[in-house]
Amino acid sequence: MTTPSWQDVAKQKREAILAAIPAEWRIENLPSVEEQVDVTEYIKQYLTEKELEYTQSSADVIAKTIAEGEWTAEEVTRAFCHRAALAHQLLHCLHEIFFDAAISDAKALDTYFSQHNKTTIGPLHGVPISLKDQFHVKGVETCMGYVGWIGTFEGKKGTGKEKVVESEMVKMLRSAGAVLYCKTSVPHTLMSGETVNNIVGYTLNPKNRQLTAGGSSGGEGALIGSGGSPVGFGTDIGGSIRIPAAFNGLYGLRPSTGRLPYEGIANSMDGQNSILSAVGPLATNAASLRLVTQALLAQKPWLSDPLVHEIPWRADHEAEVTKMLGKSDGGKLCFGILQTDGIVNPTPPIRRAISLVVEALTSAGHAVIDWTPPSHRTIVDVGFKPWVYDGGSDVRSAFALSGEPMSPQVAMYASPTKEFTASEIAATNVAMRTIKKEYLDYWNSTQAETGTGRPVDAVICPIAPFPAVRREKYKYYGYSTWVNVLDYTSVVVPVTVVDKRVDKKEEVYQAIDEKDQSVYDEYNPEIYDGAHVSVQIVGRRLQEEKMLAIAEYVGGLVGK
Amino acid sequence: MTTPSWQDVAKQKREAILAAIPAEWRIENLPSVEEQVDVTEYIKQYLTEKELEYTQSSADVIAKTIAEGEWTAEEVTRAFCHRAALAHQLLHCLHEIFFDAAISDAKALDTYFSQHNKTTIGPLHGVPISLKDQFHVKGVETCMGYVGWIGTFEGKKGTGKEKVVESEMVKMLRSAGAVLYCKTSVPHTLMSGETVNNIVGYTLNPKNRQLTAGGSSGGEGALIGSGGSPVGFGTDIGGSIRIPAAFNGLYGLRPSTGRLPYEGIANSMDGQNSILSAVGPLATNAASLRLVTQALLAQKPWLSDPLVHEIPWRADHEAEVTKMLGKSDGGKLCFGILQTDGIVNPTPPIRRAISLVVEALTSAGHAVIDWTPPSHRTIVDVGFKPWVYDGGSDVRSAFALSGEPMSPQVAMYASPTKEFTASEIAATNVAMRTIKKEYLDYWNSTQAETGTGRPVDAVICPIAPFPAVRREKYKYYGYSTWVNVLDYTSVVVPVTVVDKRVDKKEEVYQAIDEKDQSVYDEYNPEIYDGAHVSVQIVGRRLQEEKMLAIAEYVGGLVGK
Repeated sequence: MTTPSWQDVAKQKREAILAAIPAEWRIENLPSVEEQVDVTEYIKQYLTEKELEYTQSSADVIAKTIAEGEWTAEEVTRAFCHRAALAHQLLHCLHEIFFDAAISDAKALDTYFSQHNKTTIGPLHGVPISLKDQFHVKGVETCMGYVGWIGTFEGKKGTGKEKVVESEMVKMLRSAGAVLYCKTSVPHTLMSGETVNNIVGYTLNPKNRQLTAGGSSGGEGALIGSGGSPVGFGTDIGGSIRIPAAFNGLYGLRPSTGRLPYEGIANSMDGQNSILSAVGPLATNAASLRLVTQALLAQKPWLSDPLVHEIPWRADHEAEVTKMLGKSDGGKLCFGILQTDGIVNPTPPIRRAISLVVEALTSAGHAVIDWTPPSHRTIVDVGFKPWVYDGGSDVRSAFALSGEPMSPQVAMYASPTKEFTASEIAATNVAMRTIKKEYLDYWNSTQAETGTGRPVDAVICPIAPFPAVRREKYKYYGYSTWVNVLDYTSVVVPVTVVDKRVDKKEEVYQAIDEKDQSVYDEYNPEIYDGAHVSVQIVGRRLQEEKMLAIAEYVGGLVGK
Repeated sequence: MTTPSWQDVAKQKREAILAAIPAEWRIENLPSVEEQVDVTEYIKQYLTEKELEYTQSSADVIAKTIAEGEWTAEEVTRAFCHRAALAHQLLHCLHEIFFDAAISDAKALDTYFSQHNKTTIGPLHGVPISLKDQFHVKGVETCMGYVGWIGTFEGKKGTGKEKVVESEMVKMLRSAGAVLYCKTSVPHTLMSGETVNNIVGYTLNPKNRQLTAGGSSGGEGALIGSGGSPVGFGTDIGGSIRIPAAFNGLYGLRPSTGRLPYEGIANSMDGQNSILSAVGPLATNAASLRLVTQALLAQKPWLSDPLVHEIPWRADHEAEVTKMLGKSDGGKLCFGILQTDGIVNPTPPIRRAISLVVEALTSAGHAVIDWTPPSHRTIVDVGFKPWVYDGGSDVRSAFALSGEPMSPQVAMYASPTKEFTASEIAATNVAMRTIKKEYLDYWNSTQAETGTGRPVDAVICPIAPFPAVRREKYKYYGYSTWVNVLDYTSVVVPVTVVDKRVDKKEEVYQAIDEKDQSVYDEYNPEIYDGAHVSVQIVGRRLQEEKMLAIAEYVGGLVGK
């Protein structure tokens, strides 16, 4: 028996994904990627009015409407399965499709509901939830974009764990009544702001298929962005929840590590614990982020994940924000505004988004101050190190399993570099702790400037210097990674879209340096026209309740 | 100018410590170590009745009595300074003496009290608190047992930080009204259950100077144990709070990491972050542990230490225990009893202490079950690795600063071993996470056996297989380190003392293996007679409120 080539294995998997789509949901004569179609709009032609109603509803509305007995879990699930299937054919956003299991689960929920006097099994009763491919779900595979992981459990054959293990969060989502129906695409290694692998190829942005859906939770971004899911979960070690949220006009929560349960989720470079990856939701509105976060915390995840801190949902933190916002006097909240990190300047549409938020906030009576923290360059430089601690050995061994090539987006791992020693890692950890302390002290020091009697309530900041980029153009991560280095809480809020008539390039651009110039040069109003533009709302560590409340408020102000 | 020898530098420092003791507090004709004196009793001859009253009071009583205006901070402080000075001369337990500053601070507190209508500055108003030498306190040095650190800031000369920096917790203790007056001895490297260095020598056990005071917070153990301090702070990465607490008949809290602020405290092997050291209190009763823990949490340490989780003191956790204890029906709480970890068996007095606790609990109507968790051998084996990640390079460089020799107690670092690589560290981290998950699952699984509807409320376990050992006889750490590996909460509770008539050696001992036999062989009822015997009460991660409540209750039951 000859070993099949990686190309064959990848092709077989790619075709198996498509084969899981019912024939009646296949799109014949797919428009080419070169044709400028807004996929979210395009796929509406295949959907019934009812399907449109369901798939244009946010997760919180879905949960409420099913709980009221107006919709069934089954009809909602079927609609999202259909739309997800359509989206995948145009965007390459799914790794696993298990619609039959989902519909069966949805039916069981409907039965429960009717047999229990119209009560739900939990707060997510009947809500379809998509999952990044890192999650283990019984009955389906986890390839995480590696051809060599196909047919294995995390790259190992014959462990007995294949297709039977479930990540702790998966169990909790089921307990809360969620319906799981698909797993979404990731870049191999997980270490890219674009989503590409040798199995499904490149995940495209539904708004404009010339652009990336973002990464590494790019499948989530594309799927939710195109209406194929109301809410899903991704992970974020350098921006991987926030980038796809921002690039697809979604809300996304990157909680601090230890708030939501990562236990039993596959990862790359597992065991690197200087900067931990965090798991969190992406959704079409802030209320849905809150809904799923609350539903998970209500299940005391610290009892099943030893790394989760025992911090229940703190309604009082949320109420404190609501109370401040309800006051009639001015200067209710104060925001720090990070216009640039001094390394790479945001391109025109991002600058405009920040300005729109500032205008909206000040018009509503809030205060803003310039955010002039300790050097972000130091943060970004130190924070990059943990990603290369092992000199790429973990990811290269994953590629070696099949012999598949590495995409240029993760080529930083192509050439082996020396592994960090224990002493070098310790020095990095000390440097990171020092930065965390300096930043925290700076944050506290703003109390003198805010006029609220408190330090700034949140920082408004770009999530990337650009809107969704073209292929292989994701060249700067500093706006997302500083949050990971400090382990802060961040919520992405969509603000506007690129308007080529407004977001013009400057005739003369004063670049900081070559790097900055190269990012600026790539900005092209014609190509990016219509692309989503977002900001992130950043709070100190473990401020999920407060940041969600503020994000919802800011989103309301800017009208998204 | 010739560089002075390490011997000269150490001698100068040793003499400077003694010189800081007022002449009238010097003991002439010190009894030799060979003379069997109970130091706690012995030094009473030098104290007035008032001084005895103050120094035999627990910190909670001191705080209350000063707050009521019955005692002044100054008179209490003077008494503890006096007793600490006496204790040091017999036990070698102090590295820094700053009585003048303390008395000045105490006077200021008294002035505040009288000028503010008899209100206190905070919950620790006037309470003398001793600190392990790792803490930075303005005006005094931090040598941490290294001759090469004398005259430096953490081994570096001319940083400008010498004697001006304060650890965050020090600032908080001052804000709460505590009076700081001395810093206590540590073993160089901090990595020993005995306290020895080339500056103050060997820290002796006040109960029996043939025995160790424990380590690494051994100065704290000896000082509080001899009445020279009502409460102090140590650190614990492998038992360093709990061992000296146990060996000196004290209560000691090893909180989970991230509960109390470690920011700005000196350390060895700083930056090793697989197993973090935790900071916590030792005291003569559980109420004092609670008092200082509450006083620190009330100051929101997460706002000044980026690694502290935002978890305020949870009175409801404590109340839940109190409520259960107040019920009239049987089986109020259920305890898991770890009789042996299967690697080294506890010696007879430790076994008796466990039995005493079990008897007291069952008599009071509580349930106990055998604690049969996943292999402690695996935990201990994996948990040892982070201590040698850097192959000893950090501690050796500290010794190299002066050329001083390493004590046999830390000789594991004498020969350089290969540094762990990033991949090896990652694998260790994954192994540790796996163990944590298995242990947590086991803990949850006990719900089926407890009869309370809950998993066990706490585990009762030895802190070491022996009472305070003789010099160079601390040979097994597994009973303390498993708590660090899992990052659990533990409170040490004193139970009894060795009684040579009862705690006899067995005629035939069935050893597990040679290691176990060697520990058993060292046990000698004649030598250990009268030594303190304690147990630890262990809870899951971040269960400080609950464990303190249970420890106080158990301590009350066993009559200590």
